[in-house]
Amino acid sequence: MTNIPYVLRQDRPDGLTTLTLNRASQFNALSKEMLAALQTELDAIGRDPKVRVVVMAGDGKAFCAGHDLKEMRANHDKAFMQALFKACTKVMMTVTKLPQPVIARVHGIATAAGCQLVSMCDLAVAADVAKFAVSGINVGLFCATPGVGLSRNLGRKQAMEMLLTGEFISAAEAKERGLVNRVVPLEQLDAEVDKLAASIIAKTPVAVAAGKQMFYRQLEMGLESAYQLAGEVMACNAMAEDVAEGIDAFIAKRPAVWKGC
Amino acid sequence: MTNIPYVLRQDRPDGLTTLTLNRASQFNALSKEMLAALQTELDAIGRDPKVRVVVMAGDGKAFCAGHDLKEMRANHDKAFMQALFKACTKVMMTVTKLPQPVIARVHGIATAAGCQLVSMCDLAVAADVAKFAVSGINVGLFCATPGVGLSRNLGRKQAMEMLLTGEFISAAEAKERGLVNRVVPLEQLDAEVDKLAASIIAKTPVAVAAGKQMFYRQLEMGLESAYQLAGEVMACNAMAEDVAEGIDAFIAKRPAVWKGC
Amino acid sequence: MTNIPYVLRQDRPDGLTTLTLNRASQFNALSKEMLAALQTELDAIGRDPKVRVVVMAGDGKAFCAGHDLKEMRANHDKAFMQALFKACTKVMMTVTKLPQPVIARVHGIATAAGCQLVSMCDLAVAADVAKFAVSGINVGLFCATPGVGLSRNLGRKQAMEMLLTGEFISAAEAKERGLVNRVVPLEQLDAEVDKLAASIIAKTPVAVAAGKQMFYRQLEMGLESAYQLAGEVMACNAMAEDVAEGIDAFIAKRPAVWKGC
Repeated sequence: MTNIPYVLRQDRPDGLTTLTLNRASQFNALSKEMLAALQTELDAIGRDPKVRVVVMAGDGKAFCAGHDLKEMRANHDKAFMQALFKACTKVMMTVTKLPQPVIARVHGIATAAGCQLVSMCDLAVAADVAKFAVSGINVGLFCATPGVGLSRNLGRKQAMEMLLTGEFISAAEAKERGLVNRVVPLEQLDAEVDKLAASIIAKTPVAVAAGKQMFYRQLEMGLESAYQLAGEVMACNAMAEDVAEGIDAFIAKRPAVWKGC
Repeated sequence: MTNIPYVLRQDRPDGLTTLTLNRASQFNALSKEMLAALQTELDAIGRDPKVRVVVMAGDGKAFCAGHDLKEMRANHDKAFMQALFKACTKVMMTVTKLPQPVIARVHGIATAAGCQLVSMCDLAVAADVAKFAVSGINVGLFCATPGVGLSRNLGRKQAMEMLLTGEFISAAEAKERGLVNRVVPLEQLDAEVDKLAASIIAKTPVAVAAGKQMFYRQLEMGLESAYQLAGEVMACNAMAEDVAEGIDAFIAKRPAVWKGC
Repeated sequence: MTNIPYVLRQDRPDGLTTLTLNRASQFNALSKEMLAALQTELDAIGRDPKVRVVVMAGDGKAFCAGHDLKEMRANHDKAFMQALFKACTKVMMTVTKLPQPVIARVHGIATAAGCQLVSMCDLAVAADVAKFAVSGINVGLFCATPGVGLSRNLGRKQAMEMLLTGEFISAAEAKERGLVNRVVPLEQLDAEVDKLAASIIAKTPVAVAAGKQMFYRQLEMGLESAYQLAGEVMACNAMAEDVAEGIDAFIAKRPAVWKGC
């Protein structure tokens, strides 16, 4: 079992890379080892210009069931817990800081830190059978770190209800409240993820990377500062060769040919 | 009349405490006296570990019609107004800071500071006949303090529309926009509030109190700081005896027996 | 062509002023000249107490198609771009800072900075045939400044999807996600805008102007500071003569007669 990798990476020639959480028997729990494997893969992807979009997926029945409760029970030690949540936060922040957009592909349940992982991906597509909960409260542990991501996707009352009750919401409710972008029948999940990824891959990476980074930075600023940053980023982006090509192609009603700079 | 208490407190053995605004003939207006009574009750509840969940309710036809316009008209004095809004803000902040979750039980109209009270409760369940407005603008007084709570529940355009027009929205619209969590027929209102409260009472208070406090603090932070706080809170929470019990019970598929620490 | 004004201003006796973007053949693109004309009109309106509500409209098929791509292509110069985005940001911030509420009347497509203009208006009413996109990414230019307004109207995943894909959303989706307040059939658009404007014009300007300014300031504050500001603004507003009149009229069940102070 320990020889089987915790995370599988598959690269497609079109620039779509899939990371699959690979512990179906443990519902892809975010154990210490799983987090370390995710961190390694994300760091490598961040340095790899061939990757244009990342799809985050899970093997087996569940998308991801959050932290590994058995591991936590076996390590009743504050230093262990601090290190665990620190490693988890680092993975989540890496997703946000990655130059490439990350799409969560949610085919089954996403609970606790698994639900957090969905919330921290830039985009999410769910199967209609998927379900979402921040269920730590059921075992006495308020989902504090998942709540950070969740409350930046849902309204505060809606996030609070999930955090205090630990109850599941459906994929349809998750879409309505802002946790996922699209919901489709399970058999169309891959096609829908592909469609969304293809739309992003068709753009020049120069705009995507600068835009993603700017987006999260400006969200934490007041309106005037946000505009100052965005204006500067946009003026830089506007000087890219690809923008000249993009506008020429648009005016000529032909597809653009990106140089990526 | 002055002998009748402004706020009724009812305690149930299961830990559910109901506070009922008790001035039906004045639509439970938040007069100076009503605010003082609410403050006294909330302060006492904050020190009472037997209370696990608070339900905020109103007697008579209305949930709460906001400030007492006749009182305001009779006290056309800036110091009076400042003291009034300060007392009101203190009540609202006390709801947010209370260790126990507060559920608004909205059976009728909630207007102006009454709508604010709903927005500042952690959760809200409304009857389908309930209606919501921030109607101060109709008498020339922009609902500035209600707007603070409202704009932290609804999107800014949706909050702005209510504040500028003073018009009512239905319970269904309130749910759609994030002001309330659940809407049910009036005859099922108490059952639904009970169900929501019971779900929270079933959890250990140790996780609920720490979680609620962390939730509102992290909402005002940037992402990195929020995660730092949440990670620390979660590591502390994870060391609680109740978490060991909670995980053991979960693995053994039996109900947990909380110690509350 | 250059003699035709870029922006038309129409004043109605009831206090409703309409600004119409007047370059139908260019889909009302926000060229340097258009932005300068808008700035001039908005500045004049800000000083004009006869204007109570501003309606932002577009002539021809489109509401506004964002920046003028041909102009940008012809000025491949960073200083030009910086000046362009600075002028655009100034117009957007002026809308926010204007004492009068601004309602976007969206009858057709609103793309890129055109979609941003909708997001920065205080309120928006759309025809059911209207469509919204932040489509700069299609020509290689991430809609950074439009993203600032958009992400303050929509949830972050929903905003991110639009920014990364450049795809259109319908008027119904725009309403669901918070970008517009109301959606009606095209033939009812003017009637609906009028109804919304009339509701605001019926209020005293003293409350509207102070309220609008306070609203955006408090949105950028923590909860306690927001309440402190709002309480002070509300106590000032409560001392206005119009509030005494408003309450008297309310109690007497007669229409209020505002003095505007």
